[in-house]
Amino acid sequence: MHPTTSQAGELAVASVQRLEMIDLTGRLHQIVATCGIPEGIVHLYNPHTTAGLLINEGADPDVQRDLLGALDQMTPSRYPYRHAEGNSPAHLMSALTGATTTVFIHQGRLRLGTWQRIFFCEFDGPRDRQVWWKIIAG
Amino acid sequence: MHPTTSQAGELAVASVQRLEMIDLTGRLHQIVATCGIPEGIVHLYNPHTTAGLLINEGADPDVQRDLLGALDQMTPSRYPYRHAEGNSPAHLMSALTGATTTVFIHQGRLRLGTWQRIFFCEFDGPRDRQVWWKIIAG
Amino acid sequence: MHPTTSQAGELAVASVQRLEMIDLTGRLHQIVATCGIPEGIVHLYNPHTTAGLLINEGADPDVQRDLLGALDQMTPSRYPYRHAEGNSPAHLMSALTGATTTVFIHQGRLRLGTWQRIFFCEFDGPRDRQVWWKIIAG
Repeated sequence: MHPTTSQAGELAVASVQRLEMIDLTGRLHQIVATCGIPEGIVHLYNPHTTAGLLINEGADPDVQRDLLGALDQMTPSRYPYRHAEGNSPAHLMSALTGATTTVFIHQGRLRLGTWQRIFFCEFDGPRDRQVWWKIIAG
Repeated sequence: MHPTTSQAGELAVASVQRLEMIDLTGRLHQIVATCGIPEGIVHLYNPHTTAGLLINEGADPDVQRDLLGALDQMTPSRYPYRHAEGNSPAHLMSALTGATTTVFIHQGRLRLGTWQRIFFCEFDGPRDRQVWWKIIAG
Repeated sequence: MHPTTSQAGELAVASVQRLEMIDLTGRLHQIVATCGIPEGIVHLYNPHTTAGLLINEGADPDVQRDLLGALDQMTPSRYPYRHAEGNSPAHLMSALTGATTTVFIHQGRLRLGTWQRIFFCEFDGPRDRQVWWKIIAG
């Protein structure tokens, strides 16, 4: 029998505010603990164009508030946007945080820095969202 | 005979404006359809320091115009830049959008969100550019 | 005997300034040259929440100075930050540059664009830092 070399799945995420960072770390730890791949890479993919993925501090919730507030402030609000939906700043914040990220698996565990947690970033909520994941052995 | 486990290649991209988002999605769909790897990851790499890669909305071209315009506006223009070529804002926009991205392959197809398309971002055109790709099975 | 299909390790990085780009390219070339994996992907991971990873120009050191200075200027300094450590702008610059990046290996060598080098970005130094790497064959 072949050992498992990859696994994939999806996480449902429901945002309740316009701007929000939703911590996925606990669910990802669970997936990694049960995937049968002790060494490898977790690839995360955000399929939305007004959301992002971010790895940053999770210990003090003020960091998340500051990150979202400052990102919102630095995104031009007086630019003559043409996109009729009116959410162009959300597209820009999505572009700045990115659609993908990767985390290592070592000895059967997700390997994060001391203060790091993995966040789904909502920039145009509230909405029902998804995060896709794929784990590759290696 | 071994099954195919990886493939690699390059895309030529020619920009015609200073700031431009060039949609690579159709060409990448074609590569994935013919690569012989039904499940895996497409790694994309931008080898340029005044360009970027972005996955965002492709349905309304105004989103691309808004993204480029707002990114250009938020990049400091009055900073006392020292780089003699005068294109430091293009280097900064390249840093903000990034040199790499990854997309999943599932059932022989590139797996994108409903509104997503994959763009090469030119920040110092017009120029002849490249995007490198590598597909890993998994 | 199985051929080598993955390798992993860490780089120690010591920053000496608050804002600093530290070139990791030479050390990564050395790792790739000795890892025994001629074709594959180098995954780089920054485990810190006030630092980042960036691939950009290394030929003219003024580009690094301009990048750090302009990034610092565009990050809001007058926002009413609440995080008690006072380093919220460093968290934001970390979010904008990202925790991860990937580079291709081809014919036993790291494959970079002509002007590209790989940088660890310090946004809250001086500190002792780490960069984790994992190479996957493919």
